Amino acid sequence: MAKLGEALTEVLIPLAAVIGIGFAVLQWILVSRIRLSSGPVEKNGRPENLVGGEPEEDEEEGVDGPASVTKCAEIQSAISIGATSFLITEYKYLAVFMVIFGVIIFLFLGSVKGFSKDSQPCTYSKDRMCKPAVANAAFSTLAFLLGSLTSVLSGFLGMKIATYANARTTVEARKGVGRAFIAAFRSGAVMGFLLAANGLLVLYISINLFKIYYGDDWEGLYESITGYGLGGSSMALFGRVGGGIYTKAADVGADLVGKVERNIPEDDPRNPAVIADNVGDNVGDIAGMGSDLFGSYAESSCAALFVGSISSFGIDHNFSAMSYPLLISSMGIIVCLFTTLVATDFFEIKSVKQIEPSLKWQLVISTVLMTGGIAIVSFVALPSKFTLFNFGEDKTVKNWHLFFCVSVGLWAGLIIGYVTEYFTSNAYRPVQAVADSCRTGAATNVIFGLALGYKSVIVPIFAIAIAIYVSFSLASMYGIAVAALGMLSTIATGLSIDAYGPISDNAGGIAEMAGMSRKIRERTDALDSAGNTTAAIGKGFAIGSAALVSLALFGAFVSRAGIDFVNVLSPKVFIGLMVGAMLPYWFSAMTMRSVGSAALKMVEEVRRQFNTIPGLMEGTTKPDYATCVKISTDASLRKMIPPGALVMLTPLIAGTFFGVETLAGVLAGALVSGVQVAISASNTGGAWDNAKKYIEAGVSEHAKTLGPKGSDPHKAAVVGDTIGDPLKDTSGPSLNILVKLMAVESLVLAPFFAAHGGLLFKWFR
Amino acid sequence: MAKLGEALTEVLIPLAAVIGIGFAVLQWILVSRIRLSSGPVEKNGRPENLVGGEPEEDEEEGVDGPASVTKCAEIQSAISIGATSFLITEYKYLAVFMVIFGVIIFLFLGSVKGFSKDSQPCTYSKDRMCKPAVANAAFSTLAFLLGSLTSVLSGFLGMKIATYANARTTVEARKGVGRAFIAAFRSGAVMGFLLAANGLLVLYISINLFKIYYGDDWEGLYESITGYGLGGSSMALFGRVGGGIYTKAADVGADLVGKVERNIPEDDPRNPAVIADNVGDNVGDIAGMGSDLFGSYAESSCAALFVGSISSFGIDHNFSAMSYPLLISSMGIIVCLFTTLVATDFFEIKSVKQIEPSLKWQLVISTVLMTGGIAIVSFVALPSKFTLFNFGEDKTVKNWHLFFCVSVGLWAGLIIGYVTEYFTSNAYRPVQAVADSCRTGAATNVIFGLALGYKSVIVPIFAIAIAIYVSFSLASMYGIAVAALGMLSTIATGLSIDAYGPISDNAGGIAEMAGMSRKIRERTDALDSAGNTTAAIGKGFAIGSAALVSLALFGAFVSRAGIDFVNVLSPKVFIGLMVGAMLPYWFSAMTMRSVGSAALKMVEEVRRQFNTIPGLMEGTTKPDYATCVKISTDASLRKMIPPGALVMLTPLIAGTFFGVETLAGVLAGALVSGVQVAISASNTGGAWDNAKKYIEAGVSEHAKTLGPKGSDPHKAAVVGDTIGDPLKDTSGPSLNILVKLMAVESLVLAPFFAAHGGLLFKWFR
Repeated sequence: MAKLGEALTEVLIPLAAVIGIGFAVLQWILVSRIRLSSGPVEKNGRPENLVGGEPEEDEEEGVDGPASVTKCAEIQSAISIGATSFLITEYKYLAVFMVIFGVIIFLFLGSVKGFSKDSQPCTYSKDRMCKPAVANAAFSTLAFLLGSLTSVLSGFLGMKIATYANARTTVEARKGVGRAFIAAFRSGAVMGFLLAANGLLVLYISINLFKIYYGDDWEGLYESITGYGLGGSSMALFGRVGGGIYTKAADVGADLVGKVERNIPEDDPRNPAVIADNVGDNVGDIAGMGSDLFGSYAESSCAALFVGSISSFGIDHNFSAMSYPLLISSMGIIVCLFTTLVATDFFEIKSVKQIEPSLKWQLVISTVLMTGGIAIVSFVALPSKFTLFNFGEDKTVKNWHLFFCVSVGLWAGLIIGYVTEYFTSNAYRPVQAVADSCRTGAATNVIFGLALGYKSVIVPIFAIAIAIYVSFSLASMYGIAVAALGMLSTIATGLSIDAYGPISDNAGGIAEMAGMSRKIRERTDALDSAGNTTAAIGKGFAIGSAALVSLALFGAFVSRAGIDFVNVLSPKVFIGLMVGAMLPYWFSAMTMRSVGSAALKMVEEVRRQFNTIPGLMEGTTKPDYATCVKISTDASLRKMIPPGALVMLTPLIAGTFFGVETLAGVLAGALVSGVQVAISASNTGGAWDNAKKYIEAGVSEHAKTLGPKGSDPHKAAVVGDTIGDPLKDTSGPSLNILVKLMAVESLVLAPFFAAHGGLLFKWFR
Repeated sequence: MAKLGEALTEVLIPLAAVIGIGFAVLQWILVSRIRLSSGPVEKNGRPENLVGGEPEEDEEEGVDGPASVTKCAEIQSAISIGATSFLITEYKYLAVFMVIFGVIIFLFLGSVKGFSKDSQPCTYSKDRMCKPAVANAAFSTLAFLLGSLTSVLSGFLGMKIATYANARTTVEARKGVGRAFIAAFRSGAVMGFLLAANGLLVLYISINLFKIYYGDDWEGLYESITGYGLGGSSMALFGRVGGGIYTKAADVGADLVGKVERNIPEDDPRNPAVIADNVGDNVGDIAGMGSDLFGSYAESSCAALFVGSISSFGIDHNFSAMSYPLLISSMGIIVCLFTTLVATDFFEIKSVKQIEPSLKWQLVISTVLMTGGIAIVSFVALPSKFTLFNFGEDKTVKNWHLFFCVSVGLWAGLIIGYVTEYFTSNAYRPVQAVADSCRTGAATNVIFGLALGYKSVIVPIFAIAIAIYVSFSLASMYGIAVAALGMLSTIATGLSIDAYGPISDNAGGIAEMAGMSRKIRERTDALDSAGNTTAAIGKGFAIGSAALVSLALFGAFVSRAGIDFVNVLSPKVFIGLMVGAMLPYWFSAMTMRSVGSAALKMVEEVRRQFNTIPGLMEGTTKPDYATCVKISTDASLRKMIPPGALVMLTPLIAGTFFGVETLAGVLAGALVSGVQVAISASNTGGAWDNAKKYIEAGVSEHAKTLGPKGSDPHKAAVVGDTIGDPLKDTSGPSLNILVKLMAVESLVLAPFFAAHGGLLFKWFR
């Protein structure tokens, strides 16, 4: 048996979660000490600025004085109000969806045994009795709602933190790039730790509460818990798509008129779409991504827990071993805590060049430390030998096998992160070659950018394939699930450096809008450029983990649906594979077009304002920001529904009418095709953005020959950047949710599809 | 038994082939009557121009007199010489490849039984004796060489015909759009019929020659014949990739300097890259496509014949039933012959608007007639009931089942053709919306274009999925193979309308270069615009049929490798699936980058010439065409090797080191992912090209608001067109060869992989 007792397990998990939350609160307090008013007293009553203990005199004299700080505060408030109001409107829509889908889950699962309230023999250990199907339906629905609420909360908190932090980062930039970096990074950490710890805590509490009813019926308990993952990811889908359309409609619209037609800088306050653009960063990149990674985390935990419950852990009621996935996540929080301190307290950023390496080291440190952490957890929580469910058979596994499974996922994540960095950072050849191709205009820029995105798929896919092969061979579907958890175990650090990006982007926007000096803007630009790369890395992680998660969910679905193999040589499966591989394209077509047409509306409105509001170009009159915010809001709320419906309805239709085999094909097809589209879209977009920044910054001799801003190559680079916007921030990152969500939805509804699915084939028989 | 006797079968197939060749020769004679010299006597001694019987006075007076005809002849000769010299150089490279790969085939297959010369028990009917494995190795190699040579011949003849026809189309355009259309269309028909009939004839003769040695061992006979398909497709790969890089390097390079920087029209003779561009159309679009469709045809025939040989047809030695695939193709030639007469002789094109409908009707007429043809062949050639090999089991099938299989493929092709037309013709909303998005610049044009391409995937995939489901369910892998043949049965018509495109494109180029009047140029532009659409339709067919063909080959491979199912839930298979789905991206990255960097070189050269050759812009000096031709030639020959190696080596590596299961995964993954990438790339490119043409032509009120040439929306459209070039003419169409070729290579080498493959897993065991 395992060394770790049940009682200790019951203490350690919530303890880690509470430590994580406490750490997040501490970071928050540190960030909140940055004053955002010119008066001597802060809202919270603290009179001094104590960050780093440096005195106020540190501020550069004469530049960007109190008036600009007040302006920053005003802009921040406008962004925050805009983002809050959008999210609340969005959540109203989502509430309706939650209710409808909750009812669907209850009805579908309840109907499996005709809403019978009688206990039933368990599916996997036939000699025991399990709770009635209708109870599983009710608890699955409850778990779905809990997952949805946690996801929404994650997104909302992330947005609040980011909008709180952005102006503070700008203000800190006056004191040097290091200070600004710390402010942005700490704020990212607030979000990272809060989400990771909160997700763990809610899941842990839910399991314990569900156990009160379920008692020894762990099969039913962990089946129902899968609803948590479904809730998490379905909210994430709408968050990513809605937020993605919002932000890119505003961004593309603002750029097309502002940068291209009117020749005014990005984030210029005269641009009517500028507030919508900055709001968008927070609702799209921050809230959407928070929900997304929370969803991945919840799903991989649920997949592992479900497979565990029908393995010897569950059958023998070994709670510590059963809690292995949660213990891994707990260890991850502690490891990430140390990692964060390295960036914020052990080292100091002194120049712009140190920013990217510092962020990269975060990945390495957390990975190395976590490898040790996994070893500890694997050896104390697991019995030295146990059996895992392997599609109807038992597979004997040793504890060190699981150590390898989790570790291979973790290290695959690091490789993906590094490759993403290589292909999207302008410190390396690929982006520089794309920048260079701007000499001959936008067309070659696009050709080279697309080629770069395609090429960037190769290594990540091999990394994922190796992770899959190792973990699948060692521990079947459970291995895949914990490999996914391994990749996500450093989620707190991943989210920190990921959230850092949009915060820096906003900080730059606020500096521009507040009319701060060029020096400040250069610093925030440097932060932002590193942020583009980390955002791409974050997306790489999100996609890589999504691939593993959805494969784990796929395996769990197949197990729960009672299929022992999925044969490509069966026509039912093959057509599923084919159509599944097509879904990412259908989905991308919808989201790209939505951004395109919303952006066209935005362009019209911005042009109208420039043409009709006198004094706007001269800066004497304020533009009408609210109308642009409304255009983005309306477009995103209306247009998030069709792609959302595509994803949510596909498993329902495929399962109900074509049956579990076709559905299995659809899931596998969407997975293998979606991952490629997502990675290439994200990296192409990231590369274009940084190629543009490379030309703008003009740091190297080569870059100087392409610039300055406004040169022909720069204009070509702006075109690429604009095209990349919907690719990297709308389609790409939403696709990994498509892949996961269809899988988890199939898993939750598997009993229904197994019992009543395949109507069409039944009719024709 | 079947109604059709063996003797009659032996007569009908070559008869149809000979009729097809005869018809092609007839069309050639008709085209050759168009005079290309200003003198009174033609080379062939015919003094008069008899096309349509109209008198010479029909020529518009005063415009485009004899001098311009002479100029056309000169330009045509330059294009023809350039294309011939490139193809011959390319074929030298290919000869080396053929020898090396021929040796590989022989060694791999020969080693299966250690080069033993003893007869062996047959694989599928164990009680009989079959020829030794080393004989199969030798005959497979021979079939491979025959397929390669036929493919090369197809491409070469196609190019010769097209370069013969282009200037004649220009000259005919002086007499009206209808005459020009007939000239271009007839020339397309020469190519279509020659290729279809030639492919059938060589295959038929090969089978009969091989039979002399094999006698009653049909298993070995039809196994060896699969080498024919491999030869056809491997040549097609290099043809498509090499030709694609050639043509697009020249096209992109010419456009970027000529149209964008120097503001001179497309195909202007002052542009140094203009000859390379026109040569490219012939070596890429014509020779490449000819080889490609020939490859599809050869492969689907081989797949069907192989599966047939291990079914009751082969075991009972029923030659008529065995020849069902060849009889379908024979019927196709006859049906297409009637269909062609409808376009050339029954109706007359009087205005520009009639061109597209006339081409579309070709598809409908051939499909309807062919449906009847399939019924006839199915009922006379097949026994009313028989059994087919179905992964180790026997499946009982009736003759009308096969009628449905072939028909569903045929009609799926029509649907794909129509959908492609809808998404790429500027007569419909989608392309018009893309054109409209050019108002806000190149970025929105690209976003809308990409979205259009993604969207255009949906219906074709459903059509292919339905075809697969129906044919797979009715007649297993044999059903898929004959469904593919069904789609390709109207290949003569498909190729006619497909070849029509580049011929018209060249005709326009020649008109421009020869300095003909605007009226002529408008007519050739109208032909060309319809040609863009038909080229896209042709690509749609090529991709759709490639999907079916490669599934059939995949099934045949699995059968020959002795696997009874391919389980997605096996890690070996899943990693194959994942990596396979990545290959189209890797491949596209290579081809896109090759075009991009070759185009950059071309741009430098063209700029250099404009800057250093005095009098070039004024038209007083001739540019140095040869250097540009050399740049394209060098780039394409050097850069076709890495993507070619990727495709050819992947099955070898996957099969040898990872074994047949992983290889099966790779094939399935590449298939389901590659089809999507190929369709979206082709259609996006086609749509951009026609959006540009829509703005240039300015036919509708809407189009006029976007134009004229040189306006900002037009410039944005040109950027899209340029990006689309490598997508639609290099990456997209090469991908379907990737998909087929890996499958046929796996099929040919299956015995080796089954006997010696999976080394890596064996070592680690």
